[in-house]
Amino acid sequence: MKGKICVAFSGGLDTSIILKWLIDEGYEVVAFTADVGQEEDFDAIKEKALKLGAVKAEVVDLRREFVEELCFPAIACNAIYENVYLLGTSLARPVIARAQIEVAKREGCFAVSHGCTGKGNDQVRFELAFYALQPDIKVIAPWRDPVFYERFAGRGDLLAYAEEKGIPVTSTKLSPGAGILEDPNVTPPADMWKLTKDPLTAPDQPEDFTLYFEKGLPVKLEYTEGGKAKTATDPVDLFLTANAIARRNGVGRIDIVENRFIGIKSRGCYETPGLTCLRAAHVDLEGLVLDREVRALRDQFVTVNYSKLLYNGLYFSPEREFLEQSIAASQKSVNGQVRCRAYKGNMIILGRSSETEKLYDMSESSMDEIGDFSPAETTGFINVSAIRLKKYGQMKQAAGERL
Amino acid sequence: MKGKICVAFSGGLDTSIILKWLIDEGYEVVAFTADVGQEEDFDAIKEKALKLGAVKAEVVDLRREFVEELCFPAIACNAIYENVYLLGTSLARPVIARAQIEVAKREGCFAVSHGCTGKGNDQVRFELAFYALQPDIKVIAPWRDPVFYERFAGRGDLLAYAEEKGIPVTSTKLSPGAGILEDPNVTPPADMWKLTKDPLTAPDQPEDFTLYFEKGLPVKLEYTEGGKAKTATDPVDLFLTANAIARRNGVGRIDIVENRFIGIKSRGCYETPGLTCLRAAHVDLEGLVLDREVRALRDQFVTVNYSKLLYNGLYFSPEREFLEQSIAASQKSVNGQVRCRAYKGNMIILGRSSETEKLYDMSESSMDEIGDFSPAETTGFINVSAIRLKKYGQMKQAAGERL
Amino acid sequence: MKGKICVAFSGGLDTSIILKWLIDEGYEVVAFTADVGQEEDFDAIKEKALKLGAVKAEVVDLRREFVEELCFPAIACNAIYENVYLLGTSLARPVIARAQIEVAKREGCFAVSHGCTGKGNDQVRFELAFYALQPDIKVIAPWRDPVFYERFAGRGDLLAYAEEKGIPVTSTKLSPGAGILEDPNVTPPADMWKLTKDPLTAPDQPEDFTLYFEKGLPVKLEYTEGGKAKTATDPVDLFLTANAIARRNGVGRIDIVENRFIGIKSRGCYETPGLTCLRAAHVDLEGLVLDREVRALRDQFVTVNYSKLLYNGLYFSPEREFLEQSIAASQKSVNGQVRCRAYKGNMIILGRSSETEKLYDMSESSMDEIGDFSPAETTGFINVSAIRLKKYGQMKQAAGERL
Amino acid sequence: MKGKICVAFSGGLDTSIILKWLIDEGYEVVAFTADVGQEEDFDAIKEKALKLGAVKAEVVDLRREFVEELCFPAIACNAIYENVYLLGTSLARPVIARAQIEVAKREGCFAVSHGCTGKGNDQVRFELAFYALQPDIKVIAPWRDPVFYERFAGRGDLLAYAEEKGIPVTSTKLSPGAGILEDPNVTPPADMWKLTKDPLTAPDQPEDFTLYFEKGLPVKLEYTEGGKAKTATDPVDLFLTANAIARRNGVGRIDIVENRFIGIKSRGCYETPGLTCLRAAHVDLEGLVLDREVRALRDQFVTVNYSKLLYNGLYFSPEREFLEQSIAASQKSVNGQVRCRAYKGNMIILGRSSETEKLYDMSESSMDEIGDFSPAETTGFINVSAIRLKKYGQMKQAAGERL
Repeated sequence: MKGKICVAFSGGLDTSIILKWLIDEGYEVVAFTADVGQEEDFDAIKEKALKLGAVKAEVVDLRREFVEELCFPAIACNAIYENVYLLGTSLARPVIARAQIEVAKREGCFAVSHGCTGKGNDQVRFELAFYALQPDIKVIAPWRDPVFYERFAGRGDLLAYAEEKGIPVTSTKLSPGAGILEDPNVTPPADMWKLTKDPLTAPDQPEDFTLYFEKGLPVKLEYTEGGKAKTATDPVDLFLTANAIARRNGVGRIDIVENRFIGIKSRGCYETPGLTCLRAAHVDLEGLVLDREVRALRDQFVTVNYSKLLYNGLYFSPEREFLEQSIAASQKSVNGQVRCRAYKGNMIILGRSSETEKLYDMSESSMDEIGDFSPAETTGFINVSAIRLKKYGQMKQAAGERL
Repeated sequence: MKGKICVAFSGGLDTSIILKWLIDEGYEVVAFTADVGQEEDFDAIKEKALKLGAVKAEVVDLRREFVEELCFPAIACNAIYENVYLLGTSLARPVIARAQIEVAKREGCFAVSHGCTGKGNDQVRFELAFYALQPDIKVIAPWRDPVFYERFAGRGDLLAYAEEKGIPVTSTKLSPGAGILEDPNVTPPADMWKLTKDPLTAPDQPEDFTLYFEKGLPVKLEYTEGGKAKTATDPVDLFLTANAIARRNGVGRIDIVENRFIGIKSRGCYETPGLTCLRAAHVDLEGLVLDREVRALRDQFVTVNYSKLLYNGLYFSPEREFLEQSIAASQKSVNGQVRCRAYKGNMIILGRSSETEKLYDMSESSMDEIGDFSPAETTGFINVSAIRLKKYGQMKQAAGERL
Repeated sequence: MKGKICVAFSGGLDTSIILKWLIDEGYEVVAFTADVGQEEDFDAIKEKALKLGAVKAEVVDLRREFVEELCFPAIACNAIYENVYLLGTSLARPVIARAQIEVAKREGCFAVSHGCTGKGNDQVRFELAFYALQPDIKVIAPWRDPVFYERFAGRGDLLAYAEEKGIPVTSTKLSPGAGILEDPNVTPPADMWKLTKDPLTAPDQPEDFTLYFEKGLPVKLEYTEGGKAKTATDPVDLFLTANAIARRNGVGRIDIVENRFIGIKSRGCYETPGLTCLRAAHVDLEGLVLDREVRALRDQFVTVNYSKLLYNGLYFSPEREFLEQSIAASQKSVNGQVRCRAYKGNMIILGRSSETEKLYDMSESSMDEIGDFSPAETTGFINVSAIRLKKYGQMKQAAGERL
Repeated sequence: MKGKICVAFSGGLDTSIILKWLIDEGYEVVAFTADVGQEEDFDAIKEKALKLGAVKAEVVDLRREFVEELCFPAIACNAIYENVYLLGTSLARPVIARAQIEVAKREGCFAVSHGCTGKGNDQVRFELAFYALQPDIKVIAPWRDPVFYERFAGRGDLLAYAEEKGIPVTSTKLSPGAGILEDPNVTPPADMWKLTKDPLTAPDQPEDFTLYFEKGLPVKLEYTEGGKAKTATDPVDLFLTANAIARRNGVGRIDIVENRFIGIKSRGCYETPGLTCLRAAHVDLEGLVLDREVRALRDQFVTVNYSKLLYNGLYFSPEREFLEQSIAASQKSVNGQVRCRAYKGNMIILGRSSETEKLYDMSESSMDEIGDFSPAETTGFINVSAIRLKKYGQMKQAAGERL
């Protein structure tokens, strides 16, 4: 025996083959499957792993830590990558890697393995996490091992091996989607979207709901179901409910060309329905309750860098620890509620309020009331602000340059 | 005679009263009206100014410079303020201020005047522009002059003065909108939105169009009208056409609480239909053709700061000159086309392509092809990237802290 | 009586005249003097205030909070303005303003007053602090009040008034320094520097000392005096000792043209001896113990903005609260000691070490040892990092452009 | 024959062995030596290469492009890495790599080779440059090739091979310096510094000189030699003269722990005498002539990122092209002269002036003159700036929190 390996196992074709192949290579294999809320038959996955020869198969429910430790902080700092991407899978990777390392330790594995390809972001995200969590762990990445990837050079080789080894293949007609989408000018076919309703066929009636935040984190979701007012407060329940509302109303699709960590451009079509709603509501509430300068600093530094490190797989890092404390420091005043509407792909803000925060002041902002300060003082403000600009204007005039 | 003043004149109640009041105060008044594409009867405005006693009334067509000098650079750097606001009126202020200063010079005016209130952003934007453009100009801001604002303390005083002076008031029933909206939790009534169709009542059929960019600037818009393929290439035509498509499909509404330059929070409901589409298409194209690092630097520094200076009225400034050259430097490769869909409030990207730019490489990004580099090299990349993280992990382990 | 005012009183000519003038104007005056370590006869100042007619004179010892609350956090984030200025007086202003407001409250004053001119930074720093600390306080700034500044248009008017009112003038021969230095090309005369020895006449023997830091804050200074090893650990003692060492060795002079908050450029010659040494040692230690990415983020985000807000008088602000928590978050690992040398204007680092931090690893950094990772892995790192650059190089070649 | 390789050849032990070893391995070798101003006998180096069996040996004079294309732009943007390092060797790498690629092309080489170790920055800098300049080039890095580094595991193996192959070894007593310096707490021995005079033994007389800049670039250096006024205007001459002045006065030494690109901390003792003076003078001049906001943006955005990319070897990259245009855009007004003094390790600014730039205005900055704007206006400026802070203060008071 060469030793024990903990293999990330989704139950799909690739990881089934990897699992079997590692056993063939002489390893003992522990199958590890993460439940981060995807819709799967986890019992069947477990059974499949054991049937393939795993000495043990573990399914770990990570939904709570995924929502509480990753999704909610991402919402609290409005995380977004390259202006549009809400980092869906990037958020799941750290909790999955941590759980896999824990299973590996518990089961006495000397190595962990995954089924990520050699060109993507996920291999980087998993492995950087593995090494930070357990610096002396070994990582076996079959798709980067010539012995493996030369043997399985095409989908045909995988299917042949599956047949030979009796690995059940759920869908012999493999999805052609990925291939087609490599042309970034091809519109994704309607059936490629799995989680969200098409905005064109989503309900004609808008669906309203209210999100409550405390210190920047979602704490309550009020919505209507079957004509009845309902409330979700548990983080997982709240997150799944927001997801469900957004999904049925076609909210949260994006189609982009992104820049992977390793320097390759690739096309991605992503669905992040719940995050889209929660983030938009959070951004809106900050307008009401967050100081302008704190917001600007947080936007330019924390949001940008926290998003980038999540994308690049640097969650378990000194900089994440540092930035996360800055997120918390920025969110003390982010308390209040936002009334929202989902409608055919749109997430519309209907209004917002806060019982505790008072930076917004109706009479102060009113154009019709004079309020606390004398309008004449604005003259001084403008004139002093203009000192520097007048000098600039004079120099331009002297140089005969038009502004 | 106290001298000649050039007054910004919209034809509305406020500026009519200001114009008349300045004449009463002993000034000669030149009325200045800017055409930046708003739908107005400019002849009627001109006539009204003269009837009220202006010695001259000028309407200046600024649509071209508004689109070419302000809107297009804003699109080229994806300008956005506080995550959501596309800076609609901020973009118009610089060209209006410049034209007003030119009229003032030509007509021998010693001062310029405007009807902005003493709490808003527009007073700052206009006056900082005036002072940079003409450092020795005098500015008369009646709404900050106690003599004026104490005389006209309420709308009633304005109406009484208008009646006394024979100033025609187009709408005696004043819009209650502004007042209501000061409560940020009140949803704007449907009739408050003036430019865009309500997404709920927008057409059920999506409308597709294609936008072409060269060096980051829109150069062509292909669309369909009455079943016929049409093309707009002139900047003003292109911009107005994008506006029209977005308007009829309910694209470009936002409702926010923003932070004004003078430090007050205020609620704003804005419609920027055309900009919304053009900006979204531009952002998308950059994914395909712009280098990752150039994009990241531009996003974090140029976009943020260019947007902020536009919002704060610092267009005529050394920093704008500096940043604008950085925008141009970033956009050399932003050449290509984006296929778009407007549908009930949504601006959906259908695909994108570029004939000249080659940073995106289908076979390189394909997960199914090995391509140019050996997957094994990624192992080295990950392992070297992990050196720092392993040290961090070791220190955490030694300290007994959980990651 | 018009009410009671708390006046910032230094004992110099200007504040003596202001104090007297306010009494003449019918106010009761409480004199407030801050001790932030400057060398003054505070008893004489107090006596002078009372003799001039103050109803009360308070000297408040702020040395501890100045060092602990302002100087030390500034060191912990390497605060610096415009590349060179260590913010000397900016650091004192917040504690002075806070103490003055406290005296004003305690004594029942409706207003505070200061002797700052109308063009400088200090008026802004004091008043923004006053308004944040006590939003309804009134501020009386005689040098911005035409009644005052027109009466005292020149130094002659001040001297005449002083003579008339029996205000003792310590130096009738007014320092010509300030005036001369307004020409930024005039080298400051040797006697302009008050705190530091001239590097040219400083001792020929270097003076060595060791600084210890915990969580980024100075905790111990080991030095030699009269041939004996000595130690300072109390923050005030440590700071004053560092000051003394630096002063006698000519460390900490700068001569710059800076940009004031109100937009005017001005020339400043500053002496910050102790801060110069403490900051340099702190910067050096961070090289040894701080993670690269945390350092880079802190440098670009916290240092720049914290320095700017200190300079601009925005200490009592939401953004300072926010940034200060980020400073603390960045400094957990900044533990260790730095051996330093002061010599004729130079602050030289002799070596550094840390007992607790292990990010630096001699064998890992050695060019002569292979260590933990295989050199071949760097090949993969470089090749993957080159993917993006090769694409760029190919495009340049295709375009016939030379790199 | 396996083909022709262009080898970077310094004439030292390592590259001599590499050159010989490659010939033994069956390659034809072209020796390439760069002259970037180091003091070497280039003829002897050339001869040595040929004697060792190189088919050709080329020495390329790169001093002009090193100074003009790298050092001067670095000065123009005040390039600095991790607060202290002026990037000496990082600046030379791009011109060396480009020249080596040119020689390789001209001589028909399929590969280039260098003698950098597998843990440092230089391997990365050279190779990223090679790949951008010539995307299909092969790189042979013996110190990362197990065949090579296992054969030459210690210095003894190198010396034995040298003896066997008749490679002359200039110094058999190998410098122990590097090894000792791996302990970051060991003070570098006096003889480790090669370029600069020790500040303690540098001349007692200060040496004054004047630097002139146009658009941010040094254009003239006035100095005194042998009692005679002299002038250097040619870039190479100017740079070497500045170097000479700084060297003899002990200016430009640093001793740091830095963070290498690959994530390892290492200790470095660097001497950059000329750059230290030129950069300090440039920073100073910017105070006089550069707009505050342009400076702040450039500092936070261009300087930081340009320095980082130089350090990390990303000179031939889209982001460098982008940033370099921003540098140029920022420097239009950086015209003027700075009077400087070098003295025992210090670079002291004596004064600065500009004939063309007028942003500095003596009467405006004077505290004694009222000037153009009314001091009362500053009251408005401060009061409006305080609006936001008063709201903050009110909230703190309501919450019972001390500021």
